[in-house]
Amino acid sequence: MVKINENFLKLQKNYLFIEIAKRIKAFSAANPEADIIRMGIGDVTLPIAPVVVEAMKKAADEMGVKETFRGYEDSGAGYDFLKEAVANYYKGFGADVNADEIRINDGAKSDCGNIVDIFGDGNTVLVTDPAYPVYVDTNLMSGRKIIYADSNEANGFAAMPDDNVHADLIYLCSPNNPTGSVYTKAQLKEWVDYAIKHEAIIIFDAAYESFISEPDLPRSIFEIEGARKCAIEMCSLSKTAGFTGMRCGYTVVPNDLEVTASNGEKVNIASLWGRRQGSKFNGVSYPVQRAAEAVFTAEGQKQIREAIDYYRENAKIIASTLDEMGIYYTGGKNSPYIWLKCPNGMGSWEFFDKLLSEANVVGTPGAGFGKNGEGFFRLTAFGDRERTKEAMNRFKTMKF
Amino acid sequence: MVKINENFLKLQKNYLFIEIAKRIKAFSAANPEADIIRMGIGDVTLPIAPVVVEAMKKAADEMGVKETFRGYEDSGAGYDFLKEAVANYYKGFGADVNADEIRINDGAKSDCGNIVDIFGDGNTVLVTDPAYPVYVDTNLMSGRKIIYADSNEANGFAAMPDDNVHADLIYLCSPNNPTGSVYTKAQLKEWVDYAIKHEAIIIFDAAYESFISEPDLPRSIFEIEGARKCAIEMCSLSKTAGFTGMRCGYTVVPNDLEVTASNGEKVNIASLWGRRQGSKFNGVSYPVQRAAEAVFTAEGQKQIREAIDYYRENAKIIASTLDEMGIYYTGGKNSPYIWLKCPNGMGSWEFFDKLLSEANVVGTPGAGFGKNGEGFFRLTAFGDRERTKEAMNRFKTMKF
Repeated sequence: MVKINENFLKLQKNYLFIEIAKRIKAFSAANPEADIIRMGIGDVTLPIAPVVVEAMKKAADEMGVKETFRGYEDSGAGYDFLKEAVANYYKGFGADVNADEIRINDGAKSDCGNIVDIFGDGNTVLVTDPAYPVYVDTNLMSGRKIIYADSNEANGFAAMPDDNVHADLIYLCSPNNPTGSVYTKAQLKEWVDYAIKHEAIIIFDAAYESFISEPDLPRSIFEIEGARKCAIEMCSLSKTAGFTGMRCGYTVVPNDLEVTASNGEKVNIASLWGRRQGSKFNGVSYPVQRAAEAVFTAEGQKQIREAIDYYRENAKIIASTLDEMGIYYTGGKNSPYIWLKCPNGMGSWEFFDKLLSEANVVGTPGAGFGKNGEGFFRLTAFGDRERTKEAMNRFKTMKF
Repeated sequence: MVKINENFLKLQKNYLFIEIAKRIKAFSAANPEADIIRMGIGDVTLPIAPVVVEAMKKAADEMGVKETFRGYEDSGAGYDFLKEAVANYYKGFGADVNADEIRINDGAKSDCGNIVDIFGDGNTVLVTDPAYPVYVDTNLMSGRKIIYADSNEANGFAAMPDDNVHADLIYLCSPNNPTGSVYTKAQLKEWVDYAIKHEAIIIFDAAYESFISEPDLPRSIFEIEGARKCAIEMCSLSKTAGFTGMRCGYTVVPNDLEVTASNGEKVNIASLWGRRQGSKFNGVSYPVQRAAEAVFTAEGQKQIREAIDYYRENAKIIASTLDEMGIYYTGGKNSPYIWLKCPNGMGSWEFFDKLLSEANVVGTPGAGFGKNGEGFFRLTAFGDRERTKEAMNRFKTMKF
């Protein structure tokens, strides 16, 4: 008889956003006139930049002509034109990444989850808590042991390594989802030192790097000395260039990264990952890759900056409101996320219900991201300017 | 210390097509004037149909306008417009598939490999031999036990089930890659009966269904009674509509499909698969989904038929040549693949080298697809008409 992977039964049944949707639906049914403002899910709202649209249309035309038609990509790792554009982008902020170390993918999430296929199930996985649920869920699916490093008010929601605790695989996300906190170079250096000492590998999710405006903050783990010996980085154009519906990202595995197998053989991690992807991933659509390439042109960078600046201004509006109200928060500055402490010691879901019913504003309960998220709440800056202002005006009138 | 998944070390180091590329490179270096005709890799050569190009361009334009911009897809399973188009396509040849049983993906390969994530590693996997290497490799990566059902001259390269052998997961591919053989309804019914009796699940790869011209041959396993209780089907637009560079396919998991877990709980397989994909797959680009939708319009179907008919005519040219030469083969009729027996008892690679050096024609050695492939050779019909004719003319002049 066929057997299911019973690790799946250990996953939480009600995924965070499903529960949120359920509560909104119930509220809307009872209050059909309510004008709900959604600041919950981290989706962008501004359209794709004009140069990107044009690049995709040009590529679509190429696909319709025999001489310029493209079929299978030889490597499945992405076209050189895009890998070179990404490598060049990395060089722009001083990260040491070569084009042949990059694999193009459909966004950061898939690779954050799939990368662990190439590692043994006996590894101990460290996740900072609160965290993006995918890190936990995908490792639970393989039955791996997961340990947590606490992010909390005491450390500004930026968990740091503890040398007395051993981990083999470490998920870090900076700027962080959901807390908006950003590691400094010195902090990331501590993690890199820890990883090298423990012969661990860091899986670094840099999906929000484009929101960093302070020049001293690292946008890639490869700005940190030693990272090439212990880190893999995922990034995405979802938030950088509004690609949540276009689907394109990239993963960097340094050529230096090696692990010794039990037979003593040195195994190159990039080769292993290439082997996995060659059998279980089909590569990214050619017109999507051309669209992504356009993001990295001078004109593309200029156009996407406008959208990022717009979201940044939204973040500032939210942060100012919280400052005014005297509410503790992290993020909002180098991040599209604002992570606030629920007033008066309220629980995350209690605050969710109150905010929904009294201000008709939807956010994300921090408890959905891990135990340290209880009592906290995430707002996102990806909304419309006027709606963001309106939400904050309503928020200010609430009594706690 | 981080540990790799050592199952990867059991995979064959030199993937078939890498070895082929190596031999071609060596031959070309020694014979720079040789005019090589490639009939090896199964990639299409004709451009995307005009309605498909236009649909993608229109969708790209929508992404550039705030009012029509699309971000994250709610479900990640594909837009309803495309799932309904696919369900309607299935109904056109009598397969019982509903839109809500379909998940849109980046092509059949990924899902053929990733689907096993939801099944326990203790399952015994049955693969017909010869087979598309992905079925074997992705299961080796999880350390599963693989058993083989022989496809050979005696059964027309269409392996049938053996009731004395137990399997939990069964990979079937019809029209078959590499052998071009197509299961009849009666034959598939035997497999379905076997699966139900053994409480097994069939993973059915229908990627070449559009090449079936004989109306009695099944294009989907869901034309077979009982399949909804024991089968999952993968299909792709890669060969149907030249999407090898566009990347879009679909997987059907019937809502009826359930497996009993060790605690007695009935687990719905579609939900389990949705949970896996929700954490480890990002969905397909909106403009690619609009392009795929256009394939299923009346005009789209007419336009893609032209390309399929072109490839079919190529297949006929190859098959006639083999008939003329008295060489045994399968496929060529309801399949873009022609699987021939190497003349004079030659081995697959011996024949590869002879064909390359004497006729400057490249094909794929059958030995690369499993032990029953030794002594056989795959040619594909996806090439240019004149080049296919030229290759066959050269072939006919060869001495064996």
